[in-house]
Amino acid sequence: MAKDVHPPRGMRDFLPVEKLKRDIVLNTIRVTYMAHGFQEIETPALEDLERLTSGQGGDNEKLAFRVMKRGEELERAITGHTEVNTDALADLGLRYDLTVPLTRYYATNRAKLPKVFKAIQTGPVWRAERPQKGRYRQFVQCDIDIIGDSSNLAEIDILVSSLEALESIHLSDAIIRVNHRLLLANLLDGLGIPEEGKPAAMIIIDKLDKIFAEGVVKELGEKFGAKVAETATGWLASLKSDLETPQELKEIFAAVESRFGKGRLRFDPTLVRGMGYYTGTIFEIEHPESGSSIGGGGRYDGMIGRWLGDDVPAVGISIGFERAVDLVPETLVSKPPMRLVLVLDDATSETIALALARQKDLFEHGYGVRLEQRPKKLNLLLESLAEQGFTHFATVGVNSNSFESLDIKPIA
Amino acid sequence: MAKDVHPPRGMRDFLPVEKLKRDIVLNTIRVTYMAHGFQEIETPALEDLERLTSGQGGDNEKLAFRVMKRGEELERAITGHTEVNTDALADLGLRYDLTVPLTRYYATNRAKLPKVFKAIQTGPVWRAERPQKGRYRQFVQCDIDIIGDSSNLAEIDILVSSLEALESIHLSDAIIRVNHRLLLANLLDGLGIPEEGKPAAMIIIDKLDKIFAEGVVKELGEKFGAKVAETATGWLASLKSDLETPQELKEIFAAVESRFGKGRLRFDPTLVRGMGYYTGTIFEIEHPESGSSIGGGGRYDGMIGRWLGDDVPAVGISIGFERAVDLVPETLVSKPPMRLVLVLDDATSETIALALARQKDLFEHGYGVRLEQRPKKLNLLLESLAEQGFTHFATVGVNSNSFESLDIKPIA
Repeated sequence: MAKDVHPPRGMRDFLPVEKLKRDIVLNTIRVTYMAHGFQEIETPALEDLERLTSGQGGDNEKLAFRVMKRGEELERAITGHTEVNTDALADLGLRYDLTVPLTRYYATNRAKLPKVFKAIQTGPVWRAERPQKGRYRQFVQCDIDIIGDSSNLAEIDILVSSLEALESIHLSDAIIRVNHRLLLANLLDGLGIPEEGKPAAMIIIDKLDKIFAEGVVKELGEKFGAKVAETATGWLASLKSDLETPQELKEIFAAVESRFGKGRLRFDPTLVRGMGYYTGTIFEIEHPESGSSIGGGGRYDGMIGRWLGDDVPAVGISIGFERAVDLVPETLVSKPPMRLVLVLDDATSETIALALARQKDLFEHGYGVRLEQRPKKLNLLLESLAEQGFTHFATVGVNSNSFESLDIKPIA
Repeated sequence: MAKDVHPPRGMRDFLPVEKLKRDIVLNTIRVTYMAHGFQEIETPALEDLERLTSGQGGDNEKLAFRVMKRGEELERAITGHTEVNTDALADLGLRYDLTVPLTRYYATNRAKLPKVFKAIQTGPVWRAERPQKGRYRQFVQCDIDIIGDSSNLAEIDILVSSLEALESIHLSDAIIRVNHRLLLANLLDGLGIPEEGKPAAMIIIDKLDKIFAEGVVKELGEKFGAKVAETATGWLASLKSDLETPQELKEIFAAVESRFGKGRLRFDPTLVRGMGYYTGTIFEIEHPESGSSIGGGGRYDGMIGRWLGDDVPAVGISIGFERAVDLVPETLVSKPPMRLVLVLDDATSETIALALARQKDLFEHGYGVRLEQRPKKLNLLLESLAEQGFTHFATVGVNSNSFESLDIKPIA
C-alpha cells in the first residue's frame, strides 16, 4: 500500500526545516520591498485560459497546465463532435508567471490603485516542463513592478530596492547586468542584420556565455553571411576593453552608484532577455556562486495597454526564488527564538494542567514550547527534536507548580 | 478592449490594503501555532487525481478542478476512442482541502519526521462550486494536525493551541463545540435507529440549529417511524437542561479549563460534522458574530493507515481563514510601521541621488519610504497614498543634503 506515495512528478513537499528557511527568505525580501513603498497584491492561481494564451507569455504559454471544463460545459464540448478539439475542453489555466496576472490585475483594479502603482507579488507558478535538476513544475516567483512611471526613476527604484532585497538575504555579491533594447536594435543595425533576421540574431548573441565569441561569429556567419561575421568579430573584440556606460543608462547607473558604490550594476551590450515584450531597459541578476541568472526583468511599456486600450508604462524585475534560496547562507535562519520541549512525566490530569500552566509561563519568558509525553527513551526524542530546531527541554511532574521549579536545560 | 477583464468566476484579486490584513492575520495564527511546537510544512497545489478521488475527500471529491493530461498522454487518451471518457483525459487535480495532501505527505516523508508529528499547513484550496456570497472557488485553509499520538494530550494540545491562535487574532469570543463519535453512535442506538439508517439520521440531527427540535422530530419520524420520533422528543427536551460533560471528554475539558477557565469549550451532543472519516472527538469553532462555523476538525485514526498499511492515530483542526479574517477587528492591523512618501522636487540626477541618500537615512530611523515624483497636485497624491496606509511625507530638493534638512510631516 505504501508504494508510490509521492507528490506529482516535478513537484515538491517541503520538510519543516526547509519550509522555515523558505519562509524566512521570502519574508525578508517582502519586508524589504515593502519598506521601499511597494505594496503587496494577490491574484488567483488560475486565469482564463484565453488570457494565458493570448501571446503575452512567450514560450511559456505552451507550458500552461490546462484545467478541464466542468458539468454541462464539458458535455457540450464533447457531444456531437466526431473529432475532439482538446482546446475546447479547457477553460482555465494555472499561471506560468506573475506578469500576465499582474497586467490583468491592473486592468481590473486600476481605478482603486495609486496613480504610480508599485506592486509586489510573490507566489507559486506552474509549468508543464520536463522536470530536471533544479527545474520544477511548481516553483515560487518573487516580482516587483512599477506601473505608470515612464521616467528613469522607476528603473532606479526597482534596481535599488532589488539590490537592497538581495543584501537583506545576505546575497551582497549579486550584481545586475543591464542593457537597453534600443542599444540592441542599434547594434543589430550596425552589424548589418536585416529587420526580419533580428530575432534570430538576438538568440545567437544571447548564447555568448555558452558558445563564446567564436561560436557567435560562426553562427552569425552561417545565417547572415561573411560580411556580418566580419563586423561581429570587430564588435566582439571591442567588448574586451572597458565599456563606457551609454547615454541611455547613465542616469540610472549614477543614481545606483550614489547609493551602493560602483560595481553592483554592469552594462552588458550582449544581454538580450528572451521575452518579446521588453521595450527599453533589460536586467539580469547574477551571483558568483550560481551558474545561471537568479532573476531578471525590464521595461515593458506596451503590454498593459493592450487590455486597456491605453498606453501604460511599466517596468519590473523578478527574483528567481528557487535559485536565490539555495544561495542564502544558513546564518540567515540560524537565530530562531528559543524552542523548548516540555516533557510530561505522566499523563494524569494534574500533570497535564501543570504542563499547560508552565507552557504559559514559558511563553512569557520568550520560549516556543512543544508538549511531549515522556517516551521510553527520552534521549532519542530529544535528538530527533534537536534536528527540528528545538534547543532546550524541561520536564513537568506533580511538583512543577511554578516557573521556578522548572529545570531548563539545553539539549546536549 | 477593457471589457471583461476580471479574475475567473468565484476567484478574487486582493487589493494592497486587503492583502496586508490577510497576511497579518495568517501570520499571527502561524506564529502562535509555531510557539506551541507545531512545524510548518508545504505540499504542492496539485495531487494525483486518483488520490484526490479515492474516497477520503467525501463530497468535496466531486468538486476537484481536473488538470488535463499533456502531449502524447493526452493524444493516447483521445485517439481511437469512439466515445470520449473525460476521466481518462485528466491526471492531476487541484487540492480541495489540506487533509488529503497531509496524509499523503505523511506517507511520503514519515521517516524524516518526528515520531509525534505536529504539523501546520496553510494555503489555498480550490473547489469547483457554484460561487455565492462568501463562498469562493479559491480560498485559504489553515490547519494543524497531530499525527502519531492516540492520547487525549493530542486533543488538548490542538484545542489549547487553537483557542490561543484565535485569541492572537482578537477572536477571544470564539468557542469550540465538542462531541465524540462514540457518543453519537450510542445516541443513535438509544433512539432505535438501525445501523444502515445512521448516516441519514446524523444528517437530520446536524440540522438542529436550522430546523429546530420540531423539524428534527418530524424528519426522524418520517424516516424511521413514530417510535423513534417519540424517543427523540424526550432526548431533545433533555438537552435544554445543563448537560454534564460525558466521561469520554472529561479530561480534555478539565485541561482546557485549567488554562482558559470555563466556557471556551462546550459539549454539544448534536454536533455531527459531515465527513465520514472521523473516529473519535469532533470539534466545531463558532463565534457570536458569525452565523456559521468558522472552523472544525476531529480525530481521524483510520485515514493515514490506509496508505501505509499501518495504524496511525491523528487529530486535527482547521480554521476557516476566509470567515475568520472577516471577523478580525481592524485594530489588529492598525499599527503598521511609519510609512513615508518622499517627494522629489525635480528629476535631476542630483535630486535622485539625494533622495536615495535620505531614503537610507529614513530606513535607519524606522520609516518605510516610497519615492514619488512631485506631481502637479501634491495633495491628490498624498490623499491617495494615505488611503494605502502612508502616514508621513517629506520633500527632497537640491538642499536636502542631510537627514536633519528633511521636514517630515504627517499627511493631514
